[in-house]
Amino acid sequence: MLGVTILGNNSALPAFDRHPTSQIVTLDDQLFMVDCGEGTQLQLSRYRIRWGRINHIFISHLHGDHYFGLPGFLNSISLLNRENDLHLYGPAEIMPILDLQFAAANSKLAYNLHFHPLKEEGIILKTDRVQVSCFATKHRIPCFGFKFEQVKPPRRLNPEKAISHEIPANFYERLKWGEDYTNKKGEIIKNELVTDKGIAPKSYAFCADTVYDEELIDKVRGVDLLYHETTYLKDLEERAAARFHTTTTQAATIALKAGVKKLLIGHFSSKYDKLEIFEEEAKEVFPNTSLAIEGVTYKA
Amino acid sequence: MLGVTILGNNSALPAFDRHPTSQIVTLDDQLFMVDCGEGTQLQLSRYRIRWGRINHIFISHLHGDHYFGLPGFLNSISLLNRENDLHLYGPAEIMPILDLQFAAANSKLAYNLHFHPLKEEGIILKTDRVQVSCFATKHRIPCFGFKFEQVKPPRRLNPEKAISHEIPANFYERLKWGEDYTNKKGEIIKNELVTDKGIAPKSYAFCADTVYDEELIDKVRGVDLLYHETTYLKDLEERAAARFHTTTTQAATIALKAGVKKLLIGHFSSKYDKLEIFEEEAKEVFPNTSLAIEGVTYKA
Repeated sequence: MLGVTILGNNSALPAFDRHPTSQIVTLDDQLFMVDCGEGTQLQLSRYRIRWGRINHIFISHLHGDHYFGLPGFLNSISLLNRENDLHLYGPAEIMPILDLQFAAANSKLAYNLHFHPLKEEGIILKTDRVQVSCFATKHRIPCFGFKFEQVKPPRRLNPEKAISHEIPANFYERLKWGEDYTNKKGEIIKNELVTDKGIAPKSYAFCADTVYDEELIDKVRGVDLLYHETTYLKDLEERAAARFHTTTTQAATIALKAGVKKLLIGHFSSKYDKLEIFEEEAKEVFPNTSLAIEGVTYKA
Repeated sequence: MLGVTILGNNSALPAFDRHPTSQIVTLDDQLFMVDCGEGTQLQLSRYRIRWGRINHIFISHLHGDHYFGLPGFLNSISLLNRENDLHLYGPAEIMPILDLQFAAANSKLAYNLHFHPLKEEGIILKTDRVQVSCFATKHRIPCFGFKFEQVKPPRRLNPEKAISHEIPANFYERLKWGEDYTNKKGEIIKNELVTDKGIAPKSYAFCADTVYDEELIDKVRGVDLLYHETTYLKDLEERAAARFHTTTTQAATIALKAGVKKLLIGHFSSKYDKLEIFEEEAKEVFPNTSLAIEGVTYKA
């Protein structure tokens, strides 16, 4: 399952119990953090997300509402005696800030923090389950979006057939990942005999903060789930452009032109109390749109 | 009225909906922020504290749970178009961190931020209403406590006498602050004729993070309200010492030996869910003790 859990759906100024940007992308048992606004560690606790499962953090850009929660999160998992390595991907300028903070506190993390500066568009992480790439968006400062692509979805085991071929249960997990089974007589049971094709690989794209930018269309084309910011409603197109943000109608237009399956909208301006109209406006252009609501997980 | 409102009463790792350290000291209509842990801006909103009234921020030391909310707060009041100058007092190392953050965001604050590095013990702010001094505490890194002393409490106006001397109502505020009134005939109405002595000046001392340290006794002697950390219960005296923190019994001993009127305890370790026992243990030594509860204001 590829999904995204929203921890913060608001723009810079917190309001109406909405928080600055952070998301957890879940792929089976692996969690990936995308942005880490102030209070993210509290949101993780509120929604009972397992901190120890997060091994990769992606920071889109260095406006505070996207990373001011990072030093606190890095400290807290150290206090919790994390031992596993942690990988951080973000603009190069983030490390000198963190280094000064660690030095001022005379503190050393309990784990290894590996920093991967974002320099150009392309693949930044590849495991046997997922590929993550970054792409530039157009914002007031350098900013990257992230695309998560499931590379090898598991096949579906047919337990009756596996039993009939006398394959032991402790081999089932390997069957799901496409392996053939060789029995004690040396006979090879082809994987296709006991499994069916898995679900199609899923994909999710996070467009960070951006002005309306048709160059994004190719970058997110055909993803199952697209997150696009909608800081403003459609009547504030000029303000959105001046502040390098996007309106509801514009975000839905990107989704439509990119042929994505589903659109998720967020990064709402603090000037808006009610959010329903965001969904209504976006749906006029792209019907399969959802509001990004904190605490909710959206499947790709 | 001199009072302190608790915004965060927990130690480094947030837990049980308790937040890292921040307090608002209120003197009449003036607000002073003491420490600014992550999420302080959200706590200010939750408790409906007027951000615009805060003109002075005091940071005790650079462990993250005492200042990771500061950059977000400084940004947010800028987005709210603050125009008044803001004064920040803290360890010198804080400004290079803030400067890097502002540079990375390519942002400029909407107001003037004046930084006053804490170097040695002594008076750091003096207005016609309050004097603030800092004093060293013993912690793992350099750390300062702060003492707030009301310097000139208002006199109490006797309205009947003021009327009988034909003093106009728009002069009453000046009467409270001790001025004599000169009427149209050139006669001087001595202030003492129409006012009574005000309440005694109040004082509050915040001891930040510290190991048990008898040198603090003279520094906070006789204050009306003393905040002292109690990270641990009395059975963990060794752990407290090793981590440069204090137990309940130790904090109450400082309060007793310093002859303060009231003790407020906080900075509770995340290992404790229930807090009642902190109060019980401290009261065994110093009966007039209160737990620092978030959202509650304690009068000096």
